Amino acid sequence: MTDADREPRNLATATVNLWRWSADESAKPDTDSLAGEEPLEIRVRGESVAVTMRTPGNDAELAVGFLLSEGVIRSKSDILEIAPCQQGEAADRGNILNVFLSSSVEFDFEKLTRHVFASSSCGLCGKASIESVHQHFTPVESEIRLSPDTIRGLPDKLRARQDTFSQTGGLHAAALFDIEGTLLSAHEDIGRHNAVDKVLGTQFLAGACMSGAILMVSGRSSFEIMQKALSARIPIIAAISAPSSLAVEFAEESGQTLIGFLRGDSFNVYSHPERVTAG
Amino acid sequence: MTDADREPRNLATATVNLWRWSADESAKPDTDSLAGEEPLEIRVRGESVAVTMRTPGNDAELAVGFLLSEGVIRSKSDILEIAPCQQGEAADRGNILNVFLSSSVEFDFEKLTRHVFASSSCGLCGKASIESVHQHFTPVESEIRLSPDTIRGLPDKLRARQDTFSQTGGLHAAALFDIEGTLLSAHEDIGRHNAVDKVLGTQFLAGACMSGAILMVSGRSSFEIMQKALSARIPIIAAISAPSSLAVEFAEESGQTLIGFLRGDSFNVYSHPERVTAG
Repeated sequence: MTDADREPRNLATATVNLWRWSADESAKPDTDSLAGEEPLEIRVRGESVAVTMRTPGNDAELAVGFLLSEGVIRSKSDILEIAPCQQGEAADRGNILNVFLSSSVEFDFEKLTRHVFASSSCGLCGKASIESVHQHFTPVESEIRLSPDTIRGLPDKLRARQDTFSQTGGLHAAALFDIEGTLLSAHEDIGRHNAVDKVLGTQFLAGACMSGAILMVSGRSSFEIMQKALSARIPIIAAISAPSSLAVEFAEESGQTLIGFLRGDSFNVYSHPERVTAG
Repeated sequence: MTDADREPRNLATATVNLWRWSADESAKPDTDSLAGEEPLEIRVRGESVAVTMRTPGNDAELAVGFLLSEGVIRSKSDILEIAPCQQGEAADRGNILNVFLSSSVEFDFEKLTRHVFASSSCGLCGKASIESVHQHFTPVESEIRLSPDTIRGLPDKLRARQDTFSQTGGLHAAALFDIEGTLLSAHEDIGRHNAVDKVLGTQFLAGACMSGAILMVSGRSSFEIMQKALSARIPIIAAISAPSSLAVEFAEESGQTLIGFLRGDSFNVYSHPERVTAG
C-alpha cells in the first residue's frame, strides 16, 4: 500500500447528507460525520478465517488481537508478516489482510472459522456486501408515510417496555411499531442482533406482515441491523444513536428510511426522507 | 420442556454479589441484578448452524428471526417445529434448539454457518463455555494491586482519546492502562470486540506484556470481552456500563477483577476485589 493510487477509500469516518428535524415542523438539510463501517477479511495460510464488520484503521492490530484471543498466536515471533491483499478492485483493497504465520504455529481451521461469508478472490467491500444481501433480498418499495410526531413518540414507548433494562442497565432493546406508532413487539438481549432477531421472529411466527412497520433499536444502527430489517421487508428503521456509514449506504440502496439520533423532539433522517411528512 | 425438573436454569436476569465503592474510601457489599448471558446453539436438520451469546428468553423467536434474516425461511409454513434438545445435563437444556424445516426448504449449510464452536451432543452452557476457554487460557494469577482513585481516573483519560467518538457519537472504545493509570493504547471501532482486538494487537505487536495492565471498555462487559482479556493475561477489566451475568462468572473463575458502572466517583467490583485497596 505504498502507492498513493493504491490507497483504499476506507476511512474511519464518512461525511453524509441528512435531514435534521427539530421541534418545529420542518426538516433542514445538513451534513454529519459518521463512523466508518466496512468488512475486514482475515486470511491465514491463504484461507479466510474471519470476516468482521469494523471501522477501518489499525487493521493489522485488529487481526493480531483476534488471532491472539483465538489462541492461534502466543508470541510476536509467531507472526512473519501482515500484508493487505493487492489484487481486486481499488475500493476493496485494504479490506483483506493476509497474516503470514511462522511454520511452527499449529493451526486448526475448523475450530477457528467464524463469520466467514463467501468472498471471491480479493473482492470485498461495503458495496459488495450490500450487493450480496440484495441477491437474497430485493430493495423494499413502499408508499407508506409517517408523521414526525409519530417518530418522536417511539422512544418513550420502547423505554416503557424495557423491563430488564430498568433492572440491569445492561441490555439492548428492539421493537416493532405499526405506522401509527402502536407497539407490536419488543424484546431485550445482551446482543443487539439477538434483540432484533427476537422481534422479527415473534412477528414471523404470528404470520404478521412487516412491510408496513417501523423497526426501532435502542442503540446504533449498523449494516447487520439494516440487513435484518430488509429480510423482513421493513421500510423504516429508527435508532436512538448514530448509524454507521454503511448502514446509511445500505438504507439508501435498499429503499429504507433510516432515522438516527432520535432523542427528545429531534431526529435525523439519513435516507429516503420522502416517507416523513409533516402535517 | 413440560416437566418442572426439566426447566433450564437459564434466566433473563441473575443476581450477583458485588462491592460498591462510592466517593468515600470504603467498599460496601451489596447485590445487584444483571442481564443473563448464555450460549444458544441453533440446529437445522441435525447440524449446528449458529451459536450466539444471548439473554435467555424467546429463544424460538430468536432462532426464527435468525433464519429469516439469513434467507433460509420465507413463510411460516417453512417451519414444522421448534424444540429444545432434550439430552445432556439439566443445566444445558434450553440452550440448544432444533428447528425442523419443511422438506421443501432448500438449505446450504456452507453459506450459513457462523459462530459455530465445537459443541458435543447436547452439552452447551455458560459454564461449559468458560471451561472451553480455560483449555486454551489458564486463569490469571496476579498479586497486583491498584487504588480506587486510579480506577476513578480512567474514564476521563479514555474519553480524552475518543477522537472519532466525539465526532460521530457512534463508536465503542477500548483502552489499556498500566497499574498507575497511565494510558498505553486506545482504539475505537463500530464493533466492541474489534476495539478490544485493536488494543490487544497493538500491545502484542509492540512485544509488551499485558499481565500488569487494566483493560477498559466504553460500554458493557460480556463473555467475549473477558475471554479476550484472559487471552492477553490481563487481570483487571473495567467498564463504564454493566457486566453480563456470564462476564461475572467468567471473571470469578478466571482470576480476573471485574469492575462495572464506573461513573463519577463510584464503581462496582464484581469479582476478586482483593486487588482494589484503599490508602
